[in-house]
Amino acid sequence: MTDFTAKDADFEARVRASFARQRVMETFGARLTSVAPGEVEIELDFREELTQQHGYLHAGVIAAVVDSACGYAALSLAPAGAEVLSIEFKLNLLSPAAGESFVARARVVRAGRNVTVCAGDLYARREGGENLVATMLGTMMTVGS
Amino acid sequence: MTDFTAKDADFEARVRASFARQRVMETFGARLTSVAPGEVEIELDFREELTQQHGYLHAGVIAAVVDSACGYAALSLAPAGAEVLSIEFKLNLLSPAAGESFVARARVVRAGRNVTVCAGDLYARREGGENLVATMLGTMMTVGS
Amino acid sequence: MTDFTAKDADFEARVRASFARQRVMETFGARLTSVAPGEVEIELDFREELTQQHGYLHAGVIAAVVDSACGYAALSLAPAGAEVLSIEFKLNLLSPAAGESFVARARVVRAGRNVTVCAGDLYARREGGENLVATMLGTMMTVGS
Amino acid sequence: MTDFTAKDADFEARVRASFARQRVMETFGARLTSVAPGEVEIELDFREELTQQHGYLHAGVIAAVVDSACGYAALSLAPAGAEVLSIEFKLNLLSPAAGESFVARARVVRAGRNVTVCAGDLYARREGGENLVATMLGTMMTVGS
Repeated sequence: MTDFTAKDADFEARVRASFARQRVMETFGARLTSVAPGEVEIELDFREELTQQHGYLHAGVIAAVVDSACGYAALSLAPAGAEVLSIEFKLNLLSPAAGESFVARARVVRAGRNVTVCAGDLYARREGGENLVATMLGTMMTVGS
Repeated sequence: MTDFTAKDADFEARVRASFARQRVMETFGARLTSVAPGEVEIELDFREELTQQHGYLHAGVIAAVVDSACGYAALSLAPAGAEVLSIEFKLNLLSPAAGESFVARARVVRAGRNVTVCAGDLYARREGGENLVATMLGTMMTVGS
Repeated sequence: MTDFTAKDADFEARVRASFARQRVMETFGARLTSVAPGEVEIELDFREELTQQHGYLHAGVIAAVVDSACGYAALSLAPAGAEVLSIEFKLNLLSPAAGESFVARARVVRAGRNVTVCAGDLYARREGGENLVATMLGTMMTVGS
Repeated sequence: MTDFTAKDADFEARVRASFARQRVMETFGARLTSVAPGEVEIELDFREELTQQHGYLHAGVIAAVVDSACGYAALSLAPAGAEVLSIEFKLNLLSPAAGESFVARARVVRAGRNVTVCAGDLYARREGGENLVATMLGTMMTVGS
């Protein structure tokens, strides 16, 4: 349950349709596991072909899934027919992205008519626990509404 | 030619060896095309499997190559035996990442003993020209020196 | 109550002593109203001499109090004798800083030996309520410990 | 000379009028010393009442002048009647803000119809030389045009 109300009753179908068009998510094996008004989760499993030089998930892969989660959190609140673009984001890397799988959780901080600010985190799952790996603060723009 | 002097005469070999271990760069088809003291270039060709919902390169893929270029720009100035980790970066997306190929150019803004600040840009190449797609400002930490 | 434990029993006195040396806080009329392990609050009243062109608090004044709150949240967890410096921060401005008074609330997101990441918010107080005005994600470095 | 052309022939008067309404700039003793299309400079002298705990200019004061310079660089390119608001900025602090005086230099990186991205630096002047103290990457929104 979130503090937000979707303007478009079909928000989940719209978010899922857009996610399905993100070819890079398929390349990463990322799955859209939760869509609520203003809150989205994306999961992905560890894959060696997505790693940096120490065998951890590369920061860009982290950025990809957290940014997509942020964008879809924003899109879940947008009016029907609108699209959301990332203007910018900042990502802090807090600990090595080591785990069997990962979950990106994003939430809308402030939804405006044009600009929506989102926060997102990436957690690594290992031995039943979750560890915060990275945190993002980003700015999304709603267009075409 | 840059304003910086490498502390380690083998800086290029060290940067190239680390890049070769970044499995995600191979997955993206990215190539380390230039290594100078404090300045690094990475190129990649357009690939449909790296795109977002509109068919452009996904922001996370942009972040990956610009962040790697920033990290290696920092590493090029680090003493022998040291490693460089990204603490954080901010990426501004300026125009759609549409092009036949892309080049990430990163340079050190300030090299400190522990913290190095880098700036990087992604350019799209199309019809012989270059167009600025994104710009990054990031913070790298030198460890193990 | 926070999730953190202070390493230095005198953390509050240390934070208060450092705050008292920040001349700009006195210039702004800012007060350190709460110091807990990993969490700090700074308050300030509206002053016309701190405004931008529309009569709201200037973004730099917001940055000053939220950054100080972030830095002191980090310092509250640092060992005795250590100091904390801001490496960088990102500030998103969410709504006009209009209010009778303001409170900056900062918390440590991840405390490391060298690098501590903090998040902070500025709220405007008006007619008994609070409105989120800005949010910061910043990186602090612990030195001299 | 810059790469940009102003849409409004009165851009300098408009920027100067807005700056004159920023009460905090007067409080800081900051002066608008240069206005060109897409490029703005603001200078200020060292003042003890603007310092942090070590006697250097506080990061928030740096943020204030660099953000104002960025905003006015964006405004210099905006159509007549439009206003510019800062959406967000990131500031990296590179060295202590020690000097007799300081100059903030900002330039437009990409000017869009709604969103303009700017970069700005703060330099400290001391003994005839200049030293880079901080660098900003920020996002501005043009409204009311």
